Amino acid sequence: MALIVQKFGGTSVRDAQRIDNVANIVTTAYKGGNDVIVVVSAQGDTTDDLIAKAAEVNQRPSKREMDMLLSSGEQISAALLAMAIERMGYPVVSLLGWQAGFDTTSDYGNARIKKIDTSRVRKELDKRRIVVITGFQGVNRYGDMTTLGRGGSDTSAVAMAAAMHADLCQIYTDVDGVYTADPRRIPGAKKLDSITYDEMLELATLGAQVLHNRSVEMAKKYNIELEVLSSLTGAKGTIVKEDNSVEQMLLSGVAKDDNIARISIIGVPDKPGLAYKIFSKLSSKGTNVDIILQSIGRNGTKDISFTVEKDRMEDTIELLKEYTEKLGATSLVADDNVSKVSIVGAGMETHPGVAAEMFEALFSRNVNIQMISTSEIKISVLVHKADSDRAVEAIHSKFFEN
Amino acid sequence: MALIVQKFGGTSVRDAQRIDNVANIVTTAYKGGNDVIVVVSAQGDTTDDLIAKAAEVNQRPSKREMDMLLSSGEQISAALLAMAIERMGYPVVSLLGWQAGFDTTSDYGNARIKKIDTSRVRKELDKRRIVVITGFQGVNRYGDMTTLGRGGSDTSAVAMAAAMHADLCQIYTDVDGVYTADPRRIPGAKKLDSITYDEMLELATLGAQVLHNRSVEMAKKYNIELEVLSSLTGAKGTIVKEDNSVEQMLLSGVAKDDNIARISIIGVPDKPGLAYKIFSKLSSKGTNVDIILQSIGRNGTKDISFTVEKDRMEDTIELLKEYTEKLGATSLVADDNVSKVSIVGAGMETHPGVAAEMFEALFSRNVNIQMISTSEIKISVLVHKADSDRAVEAIHSKFFEN
Repeated sequence: MALIVQKFGGTSVRDAQRIDNVANIVTTAYKGGNDVIVVVSAQGDTTDDLIAKAAEVNQRPSKREMDMLLSSGEQISAALLAMAIERMGYPVVSLLGWQAGFDTTSDYGNARIKKIDTSRVRKELDKRRIVVITGFQGVNRYGDMTTLGRGGSDTSAVAMAAAMHADLCQIYTDVDGVYTADPRRIPGAKKLDSITYDEMLELATLGAQVLHNRSVEMAKKYNIELEVLSSLTGAKGTIVKEDNSVEQMLLSGVAKDDNIARISIIGVPDKPGLAYKIFSKLSSKGTNVDIILQSIGRNGTKDISFTVEKDRMEDTIELLKEYTEKLGATSLVADDNVSKVSIVGAGMETHPGVAAEMFEALFSRNVNIQMISTSEIKISVLVHKADSDRAVEAIHSKFFEN
Repeated sequence: MALIVQKFGGTSVRDAQRIDNVANIVTTAYKGGNDVIVVVSAQGDTTDDLIAKAAEVNQRPSKREMDMLLSSGEQISAALLAMAIERMGYPVVSLLGWQAGFDTTSDYGNARIKKIDTSRVRKELDKRRIVVITGFQGVNRYGDMTTLGRGGSDTSAVAMAAAMHADLCQIYTDVDGVYTADPRRIPGAKKLDSITYDEMLELATLGAQVLHNRSVEMAKKYNIELEVLSSLTGAKGTIVKEDNSVEQMLLSGVAKDDNIARISIIGVPDKPGLAYKIFSKLSSKGTNVDIILQSIGRNGTKDISFTVEKDRMEDTIELLKEYTEKLGATSLVADDNVSKVSIVGAGMETHPGVAAEMFEALFSRNVNIQMISTSEIKISVLVHKADSDRAVEAIHSKFFEN
């Protein structure tokens, strides 16, 4: 008997038929003698619909009230899934984030899980019940509803798996695993049988959209074996775990991230501490900066460019506007018409030619590179959005298709 | 400065425009220097939509999961109303039933409020915040979501008003007060300036639909002054309170209740204890019996007829079927094609002619009376549903229109 955590995203529970399908997967695991904890997202477009409703009454609602609103979404899907499981004749109970013990920070809209009090979940499992938990949400120290931000349900699932020392955490999605590139766009993309946490982390961070980076980080930290698989096909998916094999894959995939914006501060007088001040300012607002590029400008000034998530662009400009004027910068420029294209692979550091080959592939397809960033297991380039699909094709074809 | 509880039903918050309207009412009260607690129902058809969603996955979901599902409805409306109030620039916080301290019994779908821990609400009021609370819901001793059953939001509002010793509890609806009859059907219906708890209680019980009886009972018990008024016109409504005036109104109104079914047990051998057994059986299932009529049948048998809420009809038949067969009853008959029509008035007991005049009015319009029930302040008759509007017209015209 194993303890399995299964997470189902919004598409997997979008209507009654899909909910039934999920109930089948869940009860099959339960019939196999396993303890089963299920984490669900809100149905299909529920979250978007709720955001639209909010916009009708307030263009800038507080994040606290937004969390109060949005956390109703998973409540609905969790209750419906529990009802479907009841109909099939299995013991089940649905629990909200706070009932399942998810204590989070108070950072509304982007809360972090501080700890999970698993007593209620354990009690329900002891009664041999299937436990359905609302993903994406928790409660803070004021007793208020919080949400975990994008990809939060993955994080909920992995955190619960860690807290319960689960044997496996299955992330069911609408794709059947992790591919070397987005299979909807790149016909030659290949499914990976397994991938390391670090590789998955880079792919997740880079917009492969299969798993959220926070969930992979957490899985790595607590060494939770993940499986990414399709809720429709039931086929074996991709296992994400610490790689113990002798021979490492050179490269695991090509990813694209459109949810990105470039911000450039042009012509700042060249004084020490500038970057520190700018980025600590952003950090204090919880804005994650990705690629950073600093270049010497003209007349003793320099330019600083960096990327942020697209929906942080406005806030970031707002935040830096006055400050950069005070610094005497020539201008503050933002562009969200960009994409980040990356190649990822744990074996990259022992194969120094990858970067050169990647740039060659881009050059051969006439893709202009705006920024470059590298790490031990990835190389990313920022390109014009219109070039991004061509860039992915070029790189994938170069490294994975012959 | 007063403490006012304002309750808004589903129609009053059904869309962004109506939510804005409610936010205006709330902030006007707040600007007047009052502490304001707002209790909201789910938007418009949300509850029905959720019930339909549940039916798609399970025709007979557990009541626990149903409460989990349904309690999301008020969560959405409370958050949206709070956002609208935020937009108008006022300090506000929305609270779920459990956050606002509503401890209930565990009777899912029809829970009773056991006590209200007002500490969180007091803390928010001390910060001069408008407090928006989800009506209709609470939490039981297992930490699970419960709903209060039909009209539960009214009960939430009155209970909160009682717990907070509020000066006034305003129930905003889509009518502008309590009328002598349903003004949509009886053109001559008149708005009452005030009405006693007992009269209102009879009218509520009798399907006047303005206020739920549980809320009126509670208002009476804790002596909370209620005002029933329209969220659209803003005009003065009807005050419900203990009547201290010397001259009591003879009659307060005519009400009709279509949500009713008649059940008859025919030809039961006439032995003592029969009624006790039947009705304690029903009571143990939480089924409220209204009019009861017992008549001697033929050959030492008797017939027992009674009315229940329409949606309890099936369950009641199910419950009594085997039992009445065992008792040797000839048959068990049910009819939900009936209506209860009642005249209500605190002054009735000092004016014995009311019943006779009422029956005369019905006779003059050829309405056949199936059952009769009287109390100190009301006379009810059960009639065929097709006759019910005519019955109301006849009675209203007799007593209120000249």
